[in-house]
Amino acid sequence: MTTVSFTKGHGTGNDFVLVADPDGEHDLTPSQVVALCDRHFGVGADGVLRAVRSRSIAAGAAALEETPDAEWFMDYRNADGSLAEMCGNGIRVFTRFLLEEGLAELADGDTIAIGTRGGVRDVQRAGDGFSVDLGRWNLEGGEPLVHVKSLPVARPGLGITVPNPHVVLAVADEGELANADLAYIPVVDPEPIDGVNVELVLPADPLIADGIGRISMRVHERGVGETLSCGTGAAAAALATRYWAGAGAPDLWRVEVPGGVLRVRMFPTEEGEHVALSGPAELVFSGSAEL
Amino acid sequence: MTTVSFTKGHGTGNDFVLVADPDGEHDLTPSQVVALCDRHFGVGADGVLRAVRSRSIAAGAAALEETPDAEWFMDYRNADGSLAEMCGNGIRVFTRFLLEEGLAELADGDTIAIGTRGGVRDVQRAGDGFSVDLGRWNLEGGEPLVHVKSLPVARPGLGITVPNPHVVLAVADEGELANADLAYIPVVDPEPIDGVNVELVLPADPLIADGIGRISMRVHERGVGETLSCGTGAAAAALATRYWAGAGAPDLWRVEVPGGVLRVRMFPTEEGEHVALSGPAELVFSGSAEL
Repeated sequence: MTTVSFTKGHGTGNDFVLVADPDGEHDLTPSQVVALCDRHFGVGADGVLRAVRSRSIAAGAAALEETPDAEWFMDYRNADGSLAEMCGNGIRVFTRFLLEEGLAELADGDTIAIGTRGGVRDVQRAGDGFSVDLGRWNLEGGEPLVHVKSLPVARPGLGITVPNPHVVLAVADEGELANADLAYIPVVDPEPIDGVNVELVLPADPLIADGIGRISMRVHERGVGETLSCGTGAAAAALATRYWAGAGAPDLWRVEVPGGVLRVRMFPTEEGEHVALSGPAELVFSGSAEL
Repeated sequence: MTTVSFTKGHGTGNDFVLVADPDGEHDLTPSQVVALCDRHFGVGADGVLRAVRSRSIAAGAAALEETPDAEWFMDYRNADGSLAEMCGNGIRVFTRFLLEEGLAELADGDTIAIGTRGGVRDVQRAGDGFSVDLGRWNLEGGEPLVHVKSLPVARPGLGITVPNPHVVLAVADEGELANADLAYIPVVDPEPIDGVNVELVLPADPLIADGIGRISMRVHERGVGETLSCGTGAAAAALATRYWAGAGAPDLWRVEVPGGVLRVRMFPTEEGEHVALSGPAELVFSGSAEL
């Protein structure tokens, strides 16, 4: 038995157990991650974020090669114990944790580079929370037909990778958004080989106010089920809605998810357009558990 | 904002936030209970158990009148903030908490009297866990017809109060037990005015081994949904199976619930037969949160 000190936090309801392990001395086994994440027998979370110095974890070498000042690596595990790459909500909570623990500093306007298995990500302060550059996105995945239980008809969605795969689907009104039964996995035709995240999006009326696009959404995450929030899903939903809205649609979006409000921004870079996600990051409690 | 120190524990997966408040100085508002029990934004639990000396809480007066040595009162709130009476799993976790915190002592064979809104309950050590006398039970509620989604036909159940209302239903085999869809509220005819807990029970083969009856079960708790465990439900399931088994059926039962194993014992008292529940009680972690 070993005692693990942890902090519990969430970003728009997407929740994590955070563990500080600067020198990479306390790697967690998959079964320890499963035990920590169990919502009845453990601490309960969607995943575990371990804060390790990039130089102290094998996966950190690539991060340091990409960005030498990526001091910290986000060692992210899903609740089932598997390795995970990046999480748009998780990295905000991770950054909050680094700052609160005194492991890093971040002034307004400055950028902190965080290593992840999906590459290095740049994080900045934004309002009360943080903004993260999710990088390039693209329109891949075509327009498959999606059938969501309790929606009257199957309809075409728009495939977007951020870089994980999403299919975004418009709903007609608040009733459809509320009544869609996401306890069942949406049926996507043609069926994606590795599964896909499905977002149901309702445009606000008016869609654009003060130059900001506004949508609300629900999401079914592949391998998980319906969740309170999905960062890349919010980005995909905003990107799809901008695509549908056509010329003149804004590059700033307010996205309401069941767990809160996220903001999405598209901006040009030398390698092409990037998409950034911003939102809150809260630490809820600290504790220690025997593993 | 106030800082609350707590411990998280569970009994066969039925989980609780435990707070020590001996002098009754830190009553929790319903919204604080809801915040604590939220599984994504808070600590996460089925309910909150506050340990208050019976003399320091208004509801404790009745407990002290009933049993003068009921020093501790289990102030139990459901996850929705409402007051709750008694919980067969919760009182074991509550007792473990009192002992670990040094608030009470309990030698093997001794009894500790715990005040609850459902009356005083006697708790003893039993194996690695604890046993609690749930008191009188009776066959009320008749034999309503129950339709559970995904079970092929509606079938009669047996109504039992412990003293909360249950309807127990036999299933034919492991497939029926596994496939019954308890995401939907079972339809009970005639419909109980205040709802009812529904247990699906599968007898083991053989039903009785070494003088102990053996069943496995799943439960739909009224107002909650399917849960990993329900203490009074396990008692009701054992009582119903003994009733169906007829003369010669044992008074000791092993009940497998999704969250673990419970034991049920029926024994005579001066006021009639009582039913007792025993099982594990684990404390998982301690922490503090701002409310």
